[in-house]
Amino acid sequence: MPSPIITLTTDYGTQDHLVGAMKGVILKIVPDATIIDISHQVLPCDILDGALTLGMAYKYYPLKTIHVAVVDPGVGSARRPILVSGDQHYFIAPDNGVLSMVYEKEESCMVRHITSDHYFLQPVSNTFHGRDIFAPVAGWLAKNNQPASFGEEITDPVRFSMPKAKSAEGKVKGVVLKVDNFGNLVTNVTPDLIPQVFLPEGRYKISVGGKDINRVLQHYAEGAQGEPFGILGSAGLLEISMNRGNAARTLGAQRGAEVVVELL
Amino acid sequence: MPSPIITLTTDYGTQDHLVGAMKGVILKIVPDATIIDISHQVLPCDILDGALTLGMAYKYYPLKTIHVAVVDPGVGSARRPILVSGDQHYFIAPDNGVLSMVYEKEESCMVRHITSDHYFLQPVSNTFHGRDIFAPVAGWLAKNNQPASFGEEITDPVRFSMPKAKSAEGKVKGVVLKVDNFGNLVTNVTPDLIPQVFLPEGRYKISVGGKDINRVLQHYAEGAQGEPFGILGSAGLLEISMNRGNAARTLGAQRGAEVVVELL
Amino acid sequence: MPSPIITLTTDYGTQDHLVGAMKGVILKIVPDATIIDISHQVLPCDILDGALTLGMAYKYYPLKTIHVAVVDPGVGSARRPILVSGDQHYFIAPDNGVLSMVYEKEESCMVRHITSDHYFLQPVSNTFHGRDIFAPVAGWLAKNNQPASFGEEITDPVRFSMPKAKSAEGKVKGVVLKVDNFGNLVTNVTPDLIPQVFLPEGRYKISVGGKDINRVLQHYAEGAQGEPFGILGSAGLLEISMNRGNAARTLGAQRGAEVVVELL
Repeated sequence: MPSPIITLTTDYGTQDHLVGAMKGVILKIVPDATIIDISHQVLPCDILDGALTLGMAYKYYPLKTIHVAVVDPGVGSARRPILVSGDQHYFIAPDNGVLSMVYEKEESCMVRHITSDHYFLQPVSNTFHGRDIFAPVAGWLAKNNQPASFGEEITDPVRFSMPKAKSAEGKVKGVVLKVDNFGNLVTNVTPDLIPQVFLPEGRYKISVGGKDINRVLQHYAEGAQGEPFGILGSAGLLEISMNRGNAARTLGAQRGAEVVVELL
Repeated sequence: MPSPIITLTTDYGTQDHLVGAMKGVILKIVPDATIIDISHQVLPCDILDGALTLGMAYKYYPLKTIHVAVVDPGVGSARRPILVSGDQHYFIAPDNGVLSMVYEKEESCMVRHITSDHYFLQPVSNTFHGRDIFAPVAGWLAKNNQPASFGEEITDPVRFSMPKAKSAEGKVKGVVLKVDNFGNLVTNVTPDLIPQVFLPEGRYKISVGGKDINRVLQHYAEGAQGEPFGILGSAGLLEISMNRGNAARTLGAQRGAEVVVELL
Repeated sequence: MPSPIITLTTDYGTQDHLVGAMKGVILKIVPDATIIDISHQVLPCDILDGALTLGMAYKYYPLKTIHVAVVDPGVGSARRPILVSGDQHYFIAPDNGVLSMVYEKEESCMVRHITSDHYFLQPVSNTFHGRDIFAPVAGWLAKNNQPASFGEEITDPVRFSMPKAKSAEGKVKGVVLKVDNFGNLVTNVTPDLIPQVFLPEGRYKISVGGKDINRVLQHYAEGAQGEPFGILGSAGLLEISMNRGNAARTLGAQRGAEVVVELL
């Protein structure tokens, strides 16, 4: 039997004791767990950013991996803790939409409201359910493999639509979903919306941050120094990038910035 | 036999090779160790911050976990390396007070001066005992489980008193112990000093950063936008927080800021 | 059989899903792998910084550890992926010089061009070979232990010379290789070039950032408040440091700054 794998995606940062406390709680229940950090630097209280971070990583994990996602501005309020059984993985999170991208990607999901509080770390605080609810539930699920023991199915989990780029009047309008560590602007423009942009002979204009971009390259090193260009990123989305440079800083464009692509 | 668990709490940061070197040293001795980062972003050379970070996390770990804490401005000087056997856990650290919160929380501690230098990585540098002393001692302790083999007991370990809030003239005076990743101000005011503040009908004033706060809420989401409020944090301490906002930035208050609570 | 150990050194940062995706790919192939982060905060696209980070850490790991280093501005271009069998360890990286310090330190290296694309995650993107090539190759190597199965030997890997300090006219001229988490300036000056500097009776001048330094101390705590001094760092290199202070900030010196040491 390989060790159970539990991933963590939170906005707790890595400076405080929070992540360390969660890991201790898990290991006390299941000492041989392999605990993996996806990221603890989700933007604070930013559910969309959390949804994206988990959504872009979880598919690569083995069957039965347990993914814990805690971006939880409503901690201590009436919002429900949930356990989701997807096609191949489990997900444990507050019911606030942080699993929206999971719901989009999975063929089918059974969502349960976690109510079996004998699994919780007592007394449950009002401010740190990562430690008191989500970590112990992950540990016990890794141990008993019985999602039904945690609560009843619900059919109305909170989900929001991930922002979609739209085609209209020969233009595609999208937004910058995130700025990555290199300053790449990851947009929500997919190749199916405007495939010509990804062809060598295409003629098009990409407008972002008040600047126009006329080249979509195959790889970063093709870019001239100081030149922002488009590229098909590893998540299947149009990115605006630079060769050894920071496109976000150069273009002055941030998350949420509008991106317009049009054919010429 | 589950793998031994070793936690690391340091001020080494995560940009350099330091933590990576420590983990290599441990794994060379005990390849199946589970090594967990509590945090490597303790404020540089800040022993109090290290004591708090470890002190708030270690209790959640399983029996016999080995906690290594390296915040060590005196590295290479005469300060002693120590190995502490607590109620359920081991602690390995420089003898500079970084275990002060452990001494407070444990029923009993046996402290040993680590002198058995055949366990050390030779030659021992004067600047990196994390790699040369603390990591190998953690590895060998995980392997042999014999704390007595590392050195003799001492009775005078360095410890400082964690700063305590005080009641006087109907007021409680405390300080901000730390600012967490969300900008919450974690104070040293405990509910037993002024329980009325945590009751629904209480009338009180909390002064911090030159501002007065009149509400202590049950959970973050109750807060109005832009409103700093008090809340009982997950470590059992009064925190000053905001709902989806950064209280430290809003109040201009940092670690060490005075906090005064008085009944009205 | 202990679990295989795989280390990761990248410039991906820890905010995005990139590292999380790599770890998933590895664990899907070899679920019991112990995956260790050396650092993901190599300066973006900075091959020298990556070479230093890995070069200072890898020797401490057990026999047969697999070290993956991804600092890869040429991802998607013709630059080769390589697998290096060193004296005791394996290395997987783009062939761009990021293993230069490994080549310097190892007695012998066999370098292979990774061409067996049935090991890759298909389809291979042009922007994220960490996930699509380097992680799966690390996983399969951990599983089959047969480096020859990944491609043919090559004899012309890209390597650059790590910058060396030079002696001339009674002076040693070097540079700051990096600034660490504490603000220590790690230089490339080694004791063999100017041993007098590390002797108690030595009289010398170290010039960096427009300031002169006249003391080389044995350990940090000897330093007076606000005084920059030299010290022999844990990598065997001259460092410019301060006792509980940040030398880089105090001296206004950064990576690449010239360091001149001369006897008086």
